Amino acid sequence: MKVGIIGASGYVGGELLRILSYHPEIEIVVATSEQYKDEYIYRVHPNLRGKTNIKFTSHDENVNDKCDIIFTAVPHGSSVKIIPKLIDIGITIIDMAADFRLKDPEDYIKWYNYNHPNPELLDKFTYGLPELYRSKLVSSKLIAIPGCMALTSILALAPLIKNKIIKENNIIIDSKIGASGGGVKPSTATHYSERYGVVRPYKPVGHRHIGEIEQELSILSGNKIKVSMSPHGVNMVRGILCTIHTFSKNIISTSDIWRIYKTFYENEPFIRLIRDKRSIHKFPDPKILSGSNYCDIGFEKDNNVNRIVLLSATDNLMKGAAGSGVQCMNIAMGFKENTALEFPGLHPV
Amino acid sequence: MKVGIIGASGYVGGELLRILSYHPEIEIVVATSEQYKDEYIYRVHPNLRGKTNIKFTSHDENVNDKCDIIFTAVPHGSSVKIIPKLIDIGITIIDMAADFRLKDPEDYIKWYNYNHPNPELLDKFTYGLPELYRSKLVSSKLIAIPGCMALTSILALAPLIKNKIIKENNIIIDSKIGASGGGVKPSTATHYSERYGVVRPYKPVGHRHIGEIEQELSILSGNKIKVSMSPHGVNMVRGILCTIHTFSKNIISTSDIWRIYKTFYENEPFIRLIRDKRSIHKFPDPKILSGSNYCDIGFEKDNNVNRIVLLSATDNLMKGAAGSGVQCMNIAMGFKENTALEFPGLHPV
Amino acid sequence: MKVGIIGASGYVGGELLRILSYHPEIEIVVATSEQYKDEYIYRVHPNLRGKTNIKFTSHDENVNDKCDIIFTAVPHGSSVKIIPKLIDIGITIIDMAADFRLKDPEDYIKWYNYNHPNPELLDKFTYGLPELYRSKLVSSKLIAIPGCMALTSILALAPLIKNKIIKENNIIIDSKIGASGGGVKPSTATHYSERYGVVRPYKPVGHRHIGEIEQELSILSGNKIKVSMSPHGVNMVRGILCTIHTFSKNIISTSDIWRIYKTFYENEPFIRLIRDKRSIHKFPDPKILSGSNYCDIGFEKDNNVNRIVLLSATDNLMKGAAGSGVQCMNIAMGFKENTALEFPGLHPV
Amino acid sequence: MKVGIIGASGYVGGELLRILSYHPEIEIVVATSEQYKDEYIYRVHPNLRGKTNIKFTSHDENVNDKCDIIFTAVPHGSSVKIIPKLIDIGITIIDMAADFRLKDPEDYIKWYNYNHPNPELLDKFTYGLPELYRSKLVSSKLIAIPGCMALTSILALAPLIKNKIIKENNIIIDSKIGASGGGVKPSTATHYSERYGVVRPYKPVGHRHIGEIEQELSILSGNKIKVSMSPHGVNMVRGILCTIHTFSKNIISTSDIWRIYKTFYENEPFIRLIRDKRSIHKFPDPKILSGSNYCDIGFEKDNNVNRIVLLSATDNLMKGAAGSGVQCMNIAMGFKENTALEFPGLHPV
Repeated sequence: MKVGIIGASGYVGGELLRILSYHPEIEIVVATSEQYKDEYIYRVHPNLRGKTNIKFTSHDENVNDKCDIIFTAVPHGSSVKIIPKLIDIGITIIDMAADFRLKDPEDYIKWYNYNHPNPELLDKFTYGLPELYRSKLVSSKLIAIPGCMALTSILALAPLIKNKIIKENNIIIDSKIGASGGGVKPSTATHYSERYGVVRPYKPVGHRHIGEIEQELSILSGNKIKVSMSPHGVNMVRGILCTIHTFSKNIISTSDIWRIYKTFYENEPFIRLIRDKRSIHKFPDPKILSGSNYCDIGFEKDNNVNRIVLLSATDNLMKGAAGSGVQCMNIAMGFKENTALEFPGLHPV
Repeated sequence: MKVGIIGASGYVGGELLRILSYHPEIEIVVATSEQYKDEYIYRVHPNLRGKTNIKFTSHDENVNDKCDIIFTAVPHGSSVKIIPKLIDIGITIIDMAADFRLKDPEDYIKWYNYNHPNPELLDKFTYGLPELYRSKLVSSKLIAIPGCMALTSILALAPLIKNKIIKENNIIIDSKIGASGGGVKPSTATHYSERYGVVRPYKPVGHRHIGEIEQELSILSGNKIKVSMSPHGVNMVRGILCTIHTFSKNIISTSDIWRIYKTFYENEPFIRLIRDKRSIHKFPDPKILSGSNYCDIGFEKDNNVNRIVLLSATDNLMKGAAGSGVQCMNIAMGFKENTALEFPGLHPV
Repeated sequence: MKVGIIGASGYVGGELLRILSYHPEIEIVVATSEQYKDEYIYRVHPNLRGKTNIKFTSHDENVNDKCDIIFTAVPHGSSVKIIPKLIDIGITIIDMAADFRLKDPEDYIKWYNYNHPNPELLDKFTYGLPELYRSKLVSSKLIAIPGCMALTSILALAPLIKNKIIKENNIIIDSKIGASGGGVKPSTATHYSERYGVVRPYKPVGHRHIGEIEQELSILSGNKIKVSMSPHGVNMVRGILCTIHTFSKNIISTSDIWRIYKTFYENEPFIRLIRDKRSIHKFPDPKILSGSNYCDIGFEKDNNVNRIVLLSATDNLMKGAAGSGVQCMNIAMGFKENTALEFPGLHPV
Repeated sequence: MKVGIIGASGYVGGELLRILSYHPEIEIVVATSEQYKDEYIYRVHPNLRGKTNIKFTSHDENVNDKCDIIFTAVPHGSSVKIIPKLIDIGITIIDMAADFRLKDPEDYIKWYNYNHPNPELLDKFTYGLPELYRSKLVSSKLIAIPGCMALTSILALAPLIKNKIIKENNIIIDSKIGASGGGVKPSTATHYSERYGVVRPYKPVGHRHIGEIEQELSILSGNKIKVSMSPHGVNMVRGILCTIHTFSKNIISTSDIWRIYKTFYENEPFIRLIRDKRSIHKFPDPKILSGSNYCDIGFEKDNNVNRIVLLSATDNLMKGAAGSGVQCMNIAMGFKENTALEFPGLHPV
């Protein structure tokens, strides 16, 4: 299959290039970058030096003539300008941006502060979360990959919401994320001397991924759910940990919670449940997930206040972005789901 | 004044040595360490090389004969074995451990899993938080310095609890802490290759500092308050950020919240309120607090769910331990409160 | 082929487990650890959770009955006690330790301070550096994998030594290495709070890898060569950068140096030459090599003092250890040389 | 005394502001920044929040009317445009840039690639290294503070050069430096995700500080000395370690080398000799120097190749810049030399 990547010089684009370079069913035929056009991609993504001699090209509206699959890895607000022109019979479009994740046009006003120009397209996109929408993805031509913090939160919460275990009006997501989530653009805030060693509250209220989380949890629940979320930039490049404070409706045992997760995620290739008292790796930790497509999930029950603490970790560029993109592509194209996604992460690192 | 430090080879002991070496009213006459006795202290605390030629000595039960002030910087559970024998007419004892922080002996069973051997002493200790107990500290001979995460949480919450702004049954503290909080003892979990780059959930339920927080908030409120707390080890040596998710009882404006904090902490030398939209330093961040005695506090209001997010940051070894110890000593001894505590932290670092 | 790994709970053992778990020609049948016997390997190497359910076993002297290939990943000084008993008709032994790297028994006295108990075996081992000994490795049953800093230095120097470009009596290797090179054992020196952020001179003189480097350069040159080497621990877990200061015998142009490297390493699958003025990745940097088997090599000519600065980078656990081990195995067994070694590293990370 | 700081929003300017805010003899009357004029300095240097309410102002050529002392902390090439207009009877000018460090105008062509517009001023500046020029500094009105890597190298080498111990034609400086040395300006190369975790060769040949080092060593020696130097960016914000590979002319004992250093730096307030086999802090390490004005120096003798490895560490913004600036000011003004420079650094950090 021939693949094009629109916006290939960013971090998500780079991960797509890396994964797809090793995908046996895929040939990368186009990788666009306005900033780096005519430059070898390994100048920007130095890990690919020696693997590929592809050069970036400028965007071309006829890119869909050359491709079976197109990934759009451009900034939020840019996808919506590109994708409507790319939609074509036969082509599969996988959007890494936020522009087609939300179903309700009002939510774009609320969370992104703009009027969506193509509201009629929103329903045509499948939310690219295989654990919830695998069967729908099989026949999808238009896929919107979730936001990294949204995905990491939803995967942790879904089993408890679906099973009506927790109070729906008191869900607090406290997330910690590496700097790569902020993209490639240098600024004073991302200048190494300023960014190194921080625990920096970032959008403690009003983060855009809340919109997706509320949408998906509400679908799972049947009720309209609102959540609290506060992300923090921490001293690493890749990775997310979401600590999710929830409160159980009724007394529930630890083993019952375990069983709910076990059942919900049985046979999922990229979900691991982590609760290991005998290891130093007791709970999920993004440290060991760099480059892997896993979402690790754990929990702890707090009898002092009837709380259930959920802990979920991903590599924000992998399961949180490019890895999910390729996983969805594999499903949609009928490839083996874990093709090119088997790297398990490093230890120690 | 002559000072002795019991347990001077740990990280809190080292900070006490550093601060007091520059304190114009203080002479350090004893610094004990069983592990390093007869060794120069600069072998263990290399920053003090060239400043002092003191050697560690073994513990001596008659240390109070030589000292006007004794700091005990030994592990939890050890203070209680040492302090009762040190109490003496005239001497001031400042305990850095947890053994005299809680007032109710039952709380030692609940949070520390032991029967306190000297419950009659608990009431004699003043909780070493000048912002709440300054006037009491003036005449205190027995002072128990708060736990680092307790202090950082209580200072953020006190104004809203005192002013009855927030719901008392829904306080969630999500804290991020540097490795020095875990002390000097090597283990697999603290081995650099394992500890570097983590976002490691540490005691997501049941952390001992919860006992102190509940005690102090309950005193401030008049009601029995329970809180949720989950700490995480992050990729730094010093520092704490507490993100505290609270929910307001009634609609309140941002400027009213600001005014409450401004009033509550007026003239406090070590509290800074941080809300700065025009800087990259918009909220408290422990990055810039290393070595300083500040507790930086900020907040943000979340209209989506009526939440008030509190953010407070300290250096866990300074305001979170040794700095508070010296601040309390300064108050109790009648020295200028900020003596030897003026270092403002570095930028960048 | 059936593989056994003796000493599988260390960092090199863990990398062997990871790589070989994905090697299509290999089945891991034994993984030993005295400390963790009967424990699942994913408790120690958490990245392998979900990939394998192997447990560690205790060492068994009859392990060679079960295996076609044995890797010994035990500490220096331990291999020599194990390997003589394992040598058997048909079995291939790949030693990750230093015990069979040096050819001259005297060198073990000089660099390791012990009398080698089996000097007769030293000549039977092939030094596991494919770029120099590929044809010999094809038929080798006994392979000694180089030390990580030795390998990284030798690969940078070989072309210039072989071509008689540089002065042989003035070679200075200044290396920077991550903490994983020091192994899994916790100590005060590797305690995170002490190890974080260091630039720590480690064995500025007398480092054991010098012996290997002198041995291999002397073979390449035909003359007895001595080198200077000083390693430093830096703030990372994986990776080595060797900065090698050399001085040219005669004036030589940059393009001639380039040509020498290009010719020497033509067709080498794991050597990349890095000189890129138009990228921010101008020179080799271990940052982007984590998990990859590349050795990146670059150079710069200093006209002020007729110096040629060589720069070479590896992941110390991959090309510097386990990766080389598997590369040598692939050659010795007749597998495709890069099997299971294709992971290119991550960017950014 | 009234002080003005020209270029106060950079990292060196920020350190000057921090130090001088606590200097009992100094009042800061001007702090200029074109980018941040009319902004509170604590918006840029957040550690000074609560300490000072100074605002940045635009540069004013009559600044010398208001000041007794002026620090110029502007980029290289900018000082030379400002300082000639500031020189005035009575005023002391301390330049943090490179524009007046070199004595020979030819050296500006060689190392900085420009014709110095005021060669007649070069001789009037004292090179601001108290350990070599203290007596000259006492009466200096024009002082040029050394470059950070130059200072750190010269201080390590001076005793051996002065005492004719080492070969003068084979001095190799391999330095490792934190990101703050590169200044405040964001770029792709300093973007956190790219800069984090690097061991990045930076100017492996031709670094400008070589000019200063050669100048000062040649003065000490009486012969024209050339040196090799290669800096590397490492994973930290502050700090320099210079590893200097030298070769002794004759056999010399370790204790003789020790005595040479001891004698040379006797009574120097900011030089510490570090050789401590019994501590984990065996050699100088910039980790423990952040915020301190020390230059720590150590050495090791290599009998394999007659090498003496020198190790010297500083905080590049303190002894390597602002700290030296204030130390020179203290000497020139007749203040106690260590005034406002007593902070010993933190441990652990």
